[in-house]
Amino acid sequence: MIQTDIQIRFNDMDPMRRVNNASYSAYLELARLDFCNRYLSVSELEDIPFVLARVEMDLIASVLPGTSIYVETWVSSIGTTSWEFSYEIRDKRTNKVYVKAKTVQVYFDYRAQTKKQIPLDFLKSLEKERL
Amino acid sequence: MIQTDIQIRFNDMDPMRRVNNASYSAYLELARLDFCNRYLSVSELEDIPFVLARVEMDLIASVLPGTSIYVETWVSSIGTTSWEFSYEIRDKRTNKVYVKAKTVQVYFDYRAQTKKQIPLDFLKSLEKERL
Amino acid sequence: MIQTDIQIRFNDMDPMRRVNNASYSAYLELARLDFCNRYLSVSELEDIPFVLARVEMDLIASVLPGTSIYVETWVSSIGTTSWEFSYEIRDKRTNKVYVKAKTVQVYFDYRAQTKKQIPLDFLKSLEKERL
Amino acid sequence: MIQTDIQIRFNDMDPMRRVNNASYSAYLELARLDFCNRYLSVSELEDIPFVLARVEMDLIASVLPGTSIYVETWVSSIGTTSWEFSYEIRDKRTNKVYVKAKTVQVYFDYRAQTKKQIPLDFLKSLEKERL
Repeated sequence: MIQTDIQIRFNDMDPMRRVNNASYSAYLELARLDFCNRYLSVSELEDIPFVLARVEMDLIASVLPGTSIYVETWVSSIGTTSWEFSYEIRDKRTNKVYVKAKTVQVYFDYRAQTKKQIPLDFLKSLEKERL
Repeated sequence: MIQTDIQIRFNDMDPMRRVNNASYSAYLELARLDFCNRYLSVSELEDIPFVLARVEMDLIASVLPGTSIYVETWVSSIGTTSWEFSYEIRDKRTNKVYVKAKTVQVYFDYRAQTKKQIPLDFLKSLEKERL
Repeated sequence: MIQTDIQIRFNDMDPMRRVNNASYSAYLELARLDFCNRYLSVSELEDIPFVLARVEMDLIASVLPGTSIYVETWVSSIGTTSWEFSYEIRDKRTNKVYVKAKTVQVYFDYRAQTKKQIPLDFLKSLEKERL
Repeated sequence: MIQTDIQIRFNDMDPMRRVNNASYSAYLELARLDFCNRYLSVSELEDIPFVLARVEMDLIASVLPGTSIYVETWVSSIGTTSWEFSYEIRDKRTNKVYVKAKTVQVYFDYRAQTKKQIPLDFLKSLEKERL
């Protein structure tokens, strides 16, 4: 399970004085980047081996000003060409869950611009974070 | 069905040179605002009568630089305290679908900070856009 | 003088319930894109012939919810390798000025990754919008 | 001098594959929040005692993917109702300066919606960070 601390910005919050749902998408992306930095050697952007295919978010409670949060990320399902990350955006002090999310990634070669089967070494990385 | 033209910004696009998924969330929000402006009299932000509970997006194709898009929005399901919007983000010239999305909104009174049953007049507005 | 209508997004506004200053930077960028679309044939991103070197903004009044705005843009100074755009972000109904801004652009060849003298044909485009 | 580490997001970068200038505005805001958290007790958003009046940025070099940065912030000038923050956005490893910036803040009472003279205790906080 990967934990990613999030630096909330003032303009992540909207006039309703809670973090806007679009900001959550950016937080989940930071969590995916954390996964990449841990298991992949990404020296160029084209080395990122996937494309996002689906996003699902359940907004359980609002993140209010002054809150400190982190994202907990794990692999919840693995296919031959795609896999699923699951996430919880949680409170650093209380562990309260604000958002539950899932994303589907398709293994993708940006240089060849084509989908591919997940290769064995990457499969092993995914298995390590599977829950 | 409501059509909302989207003004794509340069920084909606990420280093992969396509619109970033977080920007789609902002586009769907513009579509919801369009619905509000059509059916509600929102003179203060507290008049917005709902809170977002769930977001689902299928990213079918990338929106590339130079593309013109719009969001098509309709009501796909109505409950007693919540309802579902469905959306398609489409190409203005070709009508190609880039993103399919759904959001669940809960009827909410921001002044009283409480969920409420959808009142009759708002139910009628939702029915008008039901597909 | 170029006029660019801006589609304000809900999350352009911050918890202070006015457009956040970072959003103004995105608005000015939309105005620059408008200039590019008018005077240049940009089929690839590398065709954009400049890099931003300086931004100055005077925040005169807050843009509040429900406001409709546009950016007025003109060329305020031309050098041999750089030029200055001036902008006013204004109210569509009252013409009230919310923000006054200036940016300096350096003529730049992204393919060669080098500064260049402003070529004659582009100089003519700049002169047309000079005030 | 206040140092604020910045968590760069994937979508802070634009299709030119460098951090977009609008993101720098958000970074400077994080630095100002850091100042507030150090010297003020902000329990409600209305406790923030200033409004931004001016932003100036010199974009010296592009922040590229994979870079780690921080903002260095100090008070560069103090008036009776306003003061100036100066900033440098720098590389965490090399200390290279990417952006130099200045902002003018006006002391402001959000509850009374009026400008005010900088009070003595806040003046002392500003003096501590003066350079």
